[in-house]
Amino acid sequence: MTPDRTDPEGAIARAAALYSNWGRWGEDDVLGTLNFLDAQKRRAAAALVRRGVSFSLAQSFDMNGPQKGWRRRTNPVHTMLDTGTDAALGLQGFPHGLGGADDVIAMPLQCSTQWDGLGHIFDHGKAWNGRDAARTVTSEGDVVTGIEHMAPHVAGRGVLLDVGRVIGAGGELPDGFPITEAHLAATAEAHGVTVGRGDLVLVRTGQLARARREGWGEYAGGPAPGLSFTSAGWMHANEIAAIATDTWGFEVRPNEFDHAFQPLHQVAIPNMGLLIGEMWDLDALAADCAADGAYAFWLTAAPLPITGAVGSPINPIAVK
Amino acid sequence: MTPDRTDPEGAIARAAALYSNWGRWGEDDVLGTLNFLDAQKRRAAAALVRRGVSFSLAQSFDMNGPQKGWRRRTNPVHTMLDTGTDAALGLQGFPHGLGGADDVIAMPLQCSTQWDGLGHIFDHGKAWNGRDAARTVTSEGDVVTGIEHMAPHVAGRGVLLDVGRVIGAGGELPDGFPITEAHLAATAEAHGVTVGRGDLVLVRTGQLARARREGWGEYAGGPAPGLSFTSAGWMHANEIAAIATDTWGFEVRPNEFDHAFQPLHQVAIPNMGLLIGEMWDLDALAADCAADGAYAFWLTAAPLPITGAVGSPINPIAVK
Amino acid sequence: MTPDRTDPEGAIARAAALYSNWGRWGEDDVLGTLNFLDAQKRRAAAALVRRGVSFSLAQSFDMNGPQKGWRRRTNPVHTMLDTGTDAALGLQGFPHGLGGADDVIAMPLQCSTQWDGLGHIFDHGKAWNGRDAARTVTSEGDVVTGIEHMAPHVAGRGVLLDVGRVIGAGGELPDGFPITEAHLAATAEAHGVTVGRGDLVLVRTGQLARARREGWGEYAGGPAPGLSFTSAGWMHANEIAAIATDTWGFEVRPNEFDHAFQPLHQVAIPNMGLLIGEMWDLDALAADCAADGAYAFWLTAAPLPITGAVGSPINPIAVK
Amino acid sequence: MTPDRTDPEGAIARAAALYSNWGRWGEDDVLGTLNFLDAQKRRAAAALVRRGVSFSLAQSFDMNGPQKGWRRRTNPVHTMLDTGTDAALGLQGFPHGLGGADDVIAMPLQCSTQWDGLGHIFDHGKAWNGRDAARTVTSEGDVVTGIEHMAPHVAGRGVLLDVGRVIGAGGELPDGFPITEAHLAATAEAHGVTVGRGDLVLVRTGQLARARREGWGEYAGGPAPGLSFTSAGWMHANEIAAIATDTWGFEVRPNEFDHAFQPLHQVAIPNMGLLIGEMWDLDALAADCAADGAYAFWLTAAPLPITGAVGSPINPIAVK
Repeated sequence: MTPDRTDPEGAIARAAALYSNWGRWGEDDVLGTLNFLDAQKRRAAAALVRRGVSFSLAQSFDMNGPQKGWRRRTNPVHTMLDTGTDAALGLQGFPHGLGGADDVIAMPLQCSTQWDGLGHIFDHGKAWNGRDAARTVTSEGDVVTGIEHMAPHVAGRGVLLDVGRVIGAGGELPDGFPITEAHLAATAEAHGVTVGRGDLVLVRTGQLARARREGWGEYAGGPAPGLSFTSAGWMHANEIAAIATDTWGFEVRPNEFDHAFQPLHQVAIPNMGLLIGEMWDLDALAADCAADGAYAFWLTAAPLPITGAVGSPINPIAVK
Repeated sequence: MTPDRTDPEGAIARAAALYSNWGRWGEDDVLGTLNFLDAQKRRAAAALVRRGVSFSLAQSFDMNGPQKGWRRRTNPVHTMLDTGTDAALGLQGFPHGLGGADDVIAMPLQCSTQWDGLGHIFDHGKAWNGRDAARTVTSEGDVVTGIEHMAPHVAGRGVLLDVGRVIGAGGELPDGFPITEAHLAATAEAHGVTVGRGDLVLVRTGQLARARREGWGEYAGGPAPGLSFTSAGWMHANEIAAIATDTWGFEVRPNEFDHAFQPLHQVAIPNMGLLIGEMWDLDALAADCAADGAYAFWLTAAPLPITGAVGSPINPIAVK
Repeated sequence: MTPDRTDPEGAIARAAALYSNWGRWGEDDVLGTLNFLDAQKRRAAAALVRRGVSFSLAQSFDMNGPQKGWRRRTNPVHTMLDTGTDAALGLQGFPHGLGGADDVIAMPLQCSTQWDGLGHIFDHGKAWNGRDAARTVTSEGDVVTGIEHMAPHVAGRGVLLDVGRVIGAGGELPDGFPITEAHLAATAEAHGVTVGRGDLVLVRTGQLARARREGWGEYAGGPAPGLSFTSAGWMHANEIAAIATDTWGFEVRPNEFDHAFQPLHQVAIPNMGLLIGEMWDLDALAADCAADGAYAFWLTAAPLPITGAVGSPINPIAVK
Repeated sequence: MTPDRTDPEGAIARAAALYSNWGRWGEDDVLGTLNFLDAQKRRAAAALVRRGVSFSLAQSFDMNGPQKGWRRRTNPVHTMLDTGTDAALGLQGFPHGLGGADDVIAMPLQCSTQWDGLGHIFDHGKAWNGRDAARTVTSEGDVVTGIEHMAPHVAGRGVLLDVGRVIGAGGELPDGFPITEAHLAATAEAHGVTVGRGDLVLVRTGQLARARREGWGEYAGGPAPGLSFTSAGWMHANEIAAIATDTWGFEVRPNEFDHAFQPLHQVAIPNMGLLIGEMWDLDALAADCAADGAYAFWLTAAPLPITGAVGSPINPIAVK
């Protein structure tokens, strides 16, 4: 059912009520839908490794990224503390011919390929599991559901749904294209893959391929293909552990309401407890899946255990 | 053979000559010993997943870490761009009850659990594969062997050698204890595990457990158990892809020469092209291995593809 | 009158009521006691320049500073984007023999010589001029009284009160020594200087000289000489524009109550609107004042207009 | 004489030979032309304060600045460590109703209103005073002429040359307009002001006013009015201590050679030892000067003593 474009708040409230997982894993839960990904699921997923080939699903982390400073989200700034030029000139003071290079980085945790942590989005002042947002994420960070709690968990069955290739033209969905449950189901069917409990679902729209070809343009926050607000039920019913896209914002932009900002986030993160990934680079993996027809694989996407973080840069690795 | 304590430069030169891999994978190589970890090895490693249990091998990334500022190596500084307190007070300007939290981090890439990239250490002005250090790592970073090249590769067979448990007392080696080839062989034998081509070897000394119990003290750069300078041959002969420890500096400290600084690094990184990990937290994994007797497992330790970086923070995940 | 050591909250409330400047300069005021420093005062102050000698009153900004990470206050981390070594090797790509060096800094605004902005301290949820702290300083910074508003104002008559030299032994007050109104008056009298409306008062305790000699120790937050809680009335009655010390925390530490944290700040900043400086290096200036007997001078201490900042690093310059 | 557009290297070499100050203040000099600004000059300058009005000549430091990431020059990122929202909610753990806010900044030292330090530019591998660039500015910073050496010195006679108002149309010079010695002389004559030894000269082009009206556009590195390469002799002959403009790059852009990058910098900084300021906001001061006809004033522009820095953010304050 298409929601009323003029009433995002009502639509969000209804979806939140339908798809809430509050209390499902106890009142102390800090993992959300990652609870679906248990040892049994993980064991089964390991059997998906057939050829031993591996794919990094990360964009690069550097000043050539898409960020333009919206809400202080910049591209990463990487600088050197020591260099080979200094070492070669013998300026470092180390003995026996040793030279070294060290480096530092300053970056938003949301600047490139990332997980959104459970403390990233709130619904009317409520964080995941019904907690008070003000008591959960302070200036000290997410003192309850910080992403460090997810550190050992994000390894399991990955499923690629290459909606761009199945539904789009030339492998790409146009900007503003909302991916519905029907598109997800049709793509899975075309791939001959099923999506189920504990899966880490990767939805390729093709927008990143377009940005790579044409330049970033408005990749960071502008129009983009993405998940429809209506797809929340599909995510909930399939009991997936996480979902990621090759876009900046996961959900379709402009959003499907007249005045809205990321309404699907508002349902998915604080209400469902769903782990959401953004800015993944799915192109090399997608080409391989198209070639061998295998759309399920072993996937590890380990967040850095930054204490209290509401997100993490990641380098997801898929192995087939 | 114990090297002459007064001649680190000679010992390094001899070891470098014996264990050099320069040219082994072509003059354009940017992977070093990661070349040993191929698809076949990776496929075989996936079969090591039996129970589906997973372990994060990362220390936390926060201000409570061990760094004291040596050569500007600080602990990570994580700050919030938006908070739940602001969201709860309705100060963010988002529509329909949405609130958000974002965050940033500033950190040395060597501050916590990490890989040393191939551009991290030089030998007399030479970087990995015989390249000129001054043309390899400039103020712009490692323009040849930046850690981004390793992005898809570090997933394969992990082997834990719990030297602390086998050789030490109470599971811990004392500070200053050099781990020799004989210790490594005895530990492997005790574990009933073999080390071979393409393995990601994790050497537990127990020092981190001690620091956790007694406080950091001089963990960052002070005395520590670690690999003996003499163990370079073992690493080379076994054709391992990478090696990591639970210490700040990988090799034994004080170093085994009168006036030296990290001489084993000088052999291993620029000459062997060996990927070295430091500050890993191996304790939970080690307890599990001791319990089930299985010291080989699936290991993913994906560096962030920070363009030109000479290291990367990581969250390694072992799955058994 | 010595306040009751067991009742800081009561003492603060009484002092706040007595010395509040709320509303004194209108409900929109963003300058506090800087209002006392007008053009007429500034013009008169310029006449204090007799010899033309100048003194920097800043500590250096580098990793050798006193900070230890309390509440994420670190020392500044300065790194290079380009270097002379790279330039000398011709690696920068500039034409006609040009080479360049650029640099970046990451630092708390409170890390070294600084002004505390009006948004730095709150009293029971109230910021300067009676504003709601929650509406004044959010994650976006101080959206009302950010230090940028002070940018053109902090230039006027400086007065040094070298309490360490007049009251202390060997030019230094011991840690824990509370500087009272009587000490301030006696010092001014000994110097032959008067303090009045619009003055920028510099109180030297000698603690920095001690730290320079003996090492930082607990300079950042430990015991220190400093202004007594009881001196608030003196600051208020004299209508000074600002006051600064050579200590980390301005007021005496341990504070003069059994369980307290910087109670004088709580009176001075949100209630009086007083500009407070910390970690100033007054030693060279003090030596000159002792030599020539002139304790009043021209002083400029311009905060960087960092939008929304609650403090600023500064390099104050005194000219005599 | 107009230099040959096809031979910047020759023109630079000739100008460097003519205007070099190497050795003028001894081989250990770290101040360059700041040596011209002595106590006598400073004393005389203080007499220029007539009305006591003060002007900040700094642009703001925030994400709304002009930087676009060229060579990793970003706008400043200011984040909060503690906020009033947290304080108001009682989340900070301080006693007796105290609340606090702290903040941090990460920024290039060249991001906004700034001084270029003496280590900022090199000529064929030579830094100021003929030093080897590679031994002067390493990854540790400028280990010889770091800007901390200038900390007490930059206070003296400021002179505004409002070339935009005198020569331009509507108070602004067009982009690409080279300001020659003749323009500088004509402007000084129009203002009734003389320029001489030890002066801090401020050249207003009007470009910032245009950017403020029309948006930043290519302010950071694009076409701009600025000092002509041919004006080096004027700066040298007048023995000025420093010179600053309201543009990103000080000298005219595009530069006056076919293939060049900031050739006047190459003469002025390493050869003359001239202190150069960029991105100053001279508009409010200029309006006042036009109103009262007084173009000379007291100026303080104190660099932060960041150890080893090749530049510094500043908040210059002019007092008339």
